[in-house]
Amino acid sequence: MFRALAKASAALGPGAAGRVQTMANHQLVVAPPEALRKPFSIPDRLLLGPGPSNLAPRVQAAGGLQMIGHMHREMLQIMDEIKHGLQYVFQTRNRLTLAVSGSGHSAMETALFNLLEPGDSFLVGVNGMWGQRAADIGARIGARVHSMVKEPGDYYTLQDVEEGLAQHKPVLLFLTHGESSSGVLQPLDGYGELCHRYQCLLLVDSVASLGGAPIYMDQQGIDVLYSGSQKVLNSPPGTSPISFSDKAKQKIYARKTKPFSFSMDMKWIANFWGCDDQPRIYHHTTPVIGLYSLRESLALLVEKGLEESWRQHREATAYLHQRLQELGLQLFVKDPAIRLPTVTTVAVPAGYDWRDIVGYMLDRFGIEITGGLGPSLGKVLRIGLLGCNATRENVDQLAAALKETLQHCPQNKL
Amino acid sequence: MFRALAKASAALGPGAAGRVQTMANHQLVVAPPEALRKPFSIPDRLLLGPGPSNLAPRVQAAGGLQMIGHMHREMLQIMDEIKHGLQYVFQTRNRLTLAVSGSGHSAMETALFNLLEPGDSFLVGVNGMWGQRAADIGARIGARVHSMVKEPGDYYTLQDVEEGLAQHKPVLLFLTHGESSSGVLQPLDGYGELCHRYQCLLLVDSVASLGGAPIYMDQQGIDVLYSGSQKVLNSPPGTSPISFSDKAKQKIYARKTKPFSFSMDMKWIANFWGCDDQPRIYHHTTPVIGLYSLRESLALLVEKGLEESWRQHREATAYLHQRLQELGLQLFVKDPAIRLPTVTTVAVPAGYDWRDIVGYMLDRFGIEITGGLGPSLGKVLRIGLLGCNATRENVDQLAAALKETLQHCPQNKL
Repeated sequence: MFRALAKASAALGPGAAGRVQTMANHQLVVAPPEALRKPFSIPDRLLLGPGPSNLAPRVQAAGGLQMIGHMHREMLQIMDEIKHGLQYVFQTRNRLTLAVSGSGHSAMETALFNLLEPGDSFLVGVNGMWGQRAADIGARIGARVHSMVKEPGDYYTLQDVEEGLAQHKPVLLFLTHGESSSGVLQPLDGYGELCHRYQCLLLVDSVASLGGAPIYMDQQGIDVLYSGSQKVLNSPPGTSPISFSDKAKQKIYARKTKPFSFSMDMKWIANFWGCDDQPRIYHHTTPVIGLYSLRESLALLVEKGLEESWRQHREATAYLHQRLQELGLQLFVKDPAIRLPTVTTVAVPAGYDWRDIVGYMLDRFGIEITGGLGPSLGKVLRIGLLGCNATRENVDQLAAALKETLQHCPQNKL
Repeated sequence: MFRALAKASAALGPGAAGRVQTMANHQLVVAPPEALRKPFSIPDRLLLGPGPSNLAPRVQAAGGLQMIGHMHREMLQIMDEIKHGLQYVFQTRNRLTLAVSGSGHSAMETALFNLLEPGDSFLVGVNGMWGQRAADIGARIGARVHSMVKEPGDYYTLQDVEEGLAQHKPVLLFLTHGESSSGVLQPLDGYGELCHRYQCLLLVDSVASLGGAPIYMDQQGIDVLYSGSQKVLNSPPGTSPISFSDKAKQKIYARKTKPFSFSMDMKWIANFWGCDDQPRIYHHTTPVIGLYSLRESLALLVEKGLEESWRQHREATAYLHQRLQELGLQLFVKDPAIRLPTVTTVAVPAGYDWRDIVGYMLDRFGIEITGGLGPSLGKVLRIGLLGCNATRENVDQLAAALKETLQHCPQNKL
C-alpha cells in the first residue's frame, strides 16, 4: 500500500474539463506514524507557573462531556450563563460581554482589530511582554503606535498617562493590569476618567489578574477588558473573556473600514453571542467543550465570591513571598503595593542559570515554575498561584522543592 | 455587599500621579448570577448535521484529562505526533504541517492572512458558503478578489479554473473540496498542476471532507490544505489541521509585509510547532486539552486506516441516499459523481418549512440535522455522517425518525 509512487498521478489536462474526471491512480505514500499507536498518557504536574494553571476538578469533569451543537438552545443558554458570569467577574453591566474563541492573545487582537483603524493613534504602556505585543499588533494593522516604554517591574502613573494622552491624542490606550512577565499590578483608579477627558478609550489586559486582584470595569471606566481562561479561572486555554463599554461599542459600530479579520469581527461575534437585537447568525463553530469548562469555572467563582477569591490570592501570595524571602530570594518588584497577587517574580539568584532551576523543579518534583518572558527573560523566575492552586499547601510544597533545587543546582555557573 | 454605588469611585486626578494611589472605595455592584448556581448538565444528542459530530469515546476521554504546560516536553511530543498524524491524513511530506488554534474559519483566515498581501490577485470558487467567506476575508485584507460564482450544487471544471487563471493571473486559487453548504465534492485531480502552470498556488478547504473522501495533498499538487477537528475527526471544535507546500512556504517567507494578525502569523506558529530549525519561542498558549483530543482522533484514524475510513463513509452515505430516496426525498446534488460522502444535502420536500423538520427531529428524537447555510439556506436539509457517526445503525435511526417527522410536520405551510 505504501509503494513508491511511479507516475500514479497522470493529471488530466484542461482537455478533460467540462466533465467530472476519473480519479487518477493515487496511492497512500505517507505511512501512518507508529507513535500514534502508543496509548496516550500525560504526567501529573503541579502548574505553578504564570499559567496555564491546573484545572479545577469540576472544570476538568466538564471537559470530559459529550458534544452538543454550537447553536442548540442548551448551548445558547450556556453562553448566556457565561455572559452573566463574566459581567459579575468583570463587575460590568455591559451587554457586549462574551468569550472569544481563542487564547488571551486572540482576545488582545480582537480588541485591537475592532477598536483601531489604519491611521488611528494608539498609546501603549510597554512595561513588559504584553505591551510589546499590543504595540506589534497595532503596527501590523496600520495604527500610529506610540509606546511608553518602561523597565519591567515599573508601572504607569496617572501623570505618565496624561503626558502621553496630551502628546499623542490617541483614540486608545493599552495598559496591562497584571503584567505576568514582570509581576506588576498596574493601578487602575482614575485612568478611565483621565482617558475619557482626552476622548481616548481605555483597553486593559487582565489575563493574569482577573479573579485574583480587584477590578471594577464600570466603576473604573475601563472601555475594553479582556482576560484568559487558563489562569485564575482554572479552565483550559482556548476561551477568553472580553467586554466592551458603550463608548467602545459605538466606536466599533461607527468604523469606516471592516476589521481585517472576519473571525474576530466583533459585530458578527456580538450577534452570535446574542449581544444585539438581531436573530443569531452562524459565525464560526465555537469551542463547545471549552465553553462547558469556562461555564464551570465561572460557577466556581460565583460560589466562592469575588472578594473571597481576591482574599485567597492575596494571602497565599503574601505567604509565598514570606517563604521565598526565607530562602534568601529577592522579590523582583520592589514596591509591595504593585506586586501582582497572582504571579510573583523573583530575581534569578546570583550565580544560577534559571534554566537549571526550572528544569530541576519540573523533572524532580513535577512542579512547573518558569523563567522570564520577553523583557524579563533571564532576569526572573515566575511563580503563579492561580485559582485553586493558590493554597498554603502548594506554597509549602513549592518552597521545600525550591530549597532542594537551589542546593542541587550548580551555582556560579554564569 | 451589593448596595447601589454612591460616589464610591472618587477617582483621583492627575495630582495623585507619581505615587501609587490608594484604592478608591469600590463595591461589588453586579451580583453573581443565580443561573450559575444550578448544576451543569447537557442533553444526549446524536449529531447528524454537517458538524460538529459526536466525540469518539477515546477523544471524549482525552478531553477529561488534567492540564500540562503548553511547552512541556510531553506537550511538544503530542504536537509532533499530531503533525505526523496530519501528514498521514493529508498524505503529505510537508514539514510545515500543524494544527491552528481555532475553528476551520481561523484556519481559512490563517491561510489567507499569510498567503495574500494587499493588492494580490485572488481567485475564488464561490459555489457555496465557504467560497463566500474566503472572498470576504480576501477583500478585508486588500486582495483583488475575483469570484467565480456558481450555483450551490455545482463545481469547478479544469476549464472553468483555467479561464479564471488566464483572465485574472491570481497568486492564489481557493477551492472547497467538501462544500458542506451544498453537499458537493469538488474534484481535485489536475488542478494543482494547472495552477502551477499559471504561477498560482492552490488552496483547498477540506473541513467537511478530510478523512471521509480521498485527498492526496502532495500527489494532487495542493499548496495549502486545511480542515477542522469537529467533522470526521470527531474531536471538539477549536483545533484545525493545516499544511503548506514548499512553494507556499516560500511565498510566506518572501512576504514584503507582515500579516495583519500576530496570532495567525505562520512564521511564528511554524516555529512554535517545531517546523523550522530554530529553538521554539513562545507564541501563544495553545488549547492543550483540545490538542489531547486531536491526538486521539488521529490515533483512531491511524488505527482504522484512511482507505477504510473512506470506504466507511462512502458506504454509509450510499445507504443514507437509498433510505432518503425510499422516503420520496430528492438529493440536492444531481450528479452522483460529485456528491460529498460526508454531508448529504436533500431538497426541502415540497410544502414543508425546513425549520419544522429540523426542530421536530431535535425535540422529539434528539437527532440533529440542519437546514442550508448561506446560498443553500431554505433550499436544503443537511445530514452528516461523520467519522464514528457514519454507521448503518445511525442511518436506520435517522430514516425512521425522519419518516415520522415528515408525517407529523405541517405540509403545504409555505
